[in-house]
Amino acid sequence: MNSKIKKAIVLLSGGLDSTVVLSICRNLNISVYAISFDYGQRHKIELEFAKWQAKKFKCVSHKIFKIASFGGSALTDDIDVPVNKNIEDIPKEIPITYVPGRNLIFLSFAAGYAESQNIEEIYIGVNSIDYSGYPDCRQGFIDKFESLINISTKKGLEGKKFKIKAPLINLNKEEIILIGKKNNVDFSKTCSCYNPSKKKMCGICDSCLLRKKGFENAGLEE
Amino acid sequence: MNSKIKKAIVLLSGGLDSTVVLSICRNLNISVYAISFDYGQRHKIELEFAKWQAKKFKCVSHKIFKIASFGGSALTDDIDVPVNKNIEDIPKEIPITYVPGRNLIFLSFAAGYAESQNIEEIYIGVNSIDYSGYPDCRQGFIDKFESLINISTKKGLEGKKFKIKAPLINLNKEEIILIGKKNNVDFSKTCSCYNPSKKKMCGICDSCLLRKKGFENAGLEE
Repeated sequence: MNSKIKKAIVLLSGGLDSTVVLSICRNLNISVYAISFDYGQRHKIELEFAKWQAKKFKCVSHKIFKIASFGGSALTDDIDVPVNKNIEDIPKEIPITYVPGRNLIFLSFAAGYAESQNIEEIYIGVNSIDYSGYPDCRQGFIDKFESLINISTKKGLEGKKFKIKAPLINLNKEEIILIGKKNNVDFSKTCSCYNPSKKKMCGICDSCLLRKKGFENAGLEE
Repeated sequence: MNSKIKKAIVLLSGGLDSTVVLSICRNLNISVYAISFDYGQRHKIELEFAKWQAKKFKCVSHKIFKIASFGGSALTDDIDVPVNKNIEDIPKEIPITYVPGRNLIFLSFAAGYAESQNIEEIYIGVNSIDYSGYPDCRQGFIDKFESLINISTKKGLEGKKFKIKAPLINLNKEEIILIGKKNNVDFSKTCSCYNPSKKKMCGICDSCLLRKKGFENAGLEE
């Protein structure tokens, strides 16, 4: 029996995916140090949900890093969020909701924070099935990033190996929702929408469409 | 003749090395978009020097990203900056002035900003000869990071190749100072010190010692 309590950082946006990741970690009895980012996103309401979920799942701590916006996206700038009638209509190319360097920046902060807190595992809720096609949500990126921090940090060089875990990477939205359901996630306290107003999701952005289809396939009400 | 004006991002800390990099870029007639970081460093005075140098070298713009401190270093926390009598006395291991994930975070912001500004080249003043032994100042890190952003950004995937340039990487302090001298750098408007007080460098931290020896070897007054 391993009596050592496991610790991990969880990148918690307040969206559906990262909340399910949090529930997975807590199910494994991992002590979670949640982190979120205030980066000028138009869906800042997600941070309120992140706080709620961190509390519900009894995180050891929840740190919100306030960082300067770096621009160039419909999620941060004054650019319309694209809408499509059906999932099939979502264009195949990377959409304007892509935020340049976002997961790179988030994971870099997570790595610095992990090192300073003496934690080796970092969980992130990226998935590459039902997603918006962002290049920084794929396994190849995660693997390369993990290898990078193990050569560019003091602890990495000293032999302490950092691990980036992306437990949802090969799951579709339906599967993710079913895991969350099993783990008692309150989905009404998560925000997937790219363009919410007054705590209400728009229902027509790509992310809302993917979420809706996921619940339909899972045979659940949102 | 190439009539296209080259653009580049320069990470400008306000220290000696990054200012010399800025002078190198301007000598090459590159239009420079300088960026600096306010990350709670105790030597924040360097940002004043960064502003001064950005102006002197006629940067197109100078953006200071204010970001949350991630802690764990004598440069950001309430931990004494180590002092050594002579350069030979500086211990070989990575010192407590190491900031976890610093260049990773800085370069990640630079990459996101470069992508949003449609710029492909990023200059950074790291060097691995006369330096404090930080793991994120070595060529191996720079190469891996460059490769990472080319698979994790939209423009990278579309075939626009980002380049991270570290022109000082194999130079010693004396050589760096001599290039700066040739390029008309005003060294009195740079800060290398880890622990300055009221615009005065301490003269005894590792960085001050390395700087002092560099000027001596170059046969120049500071």
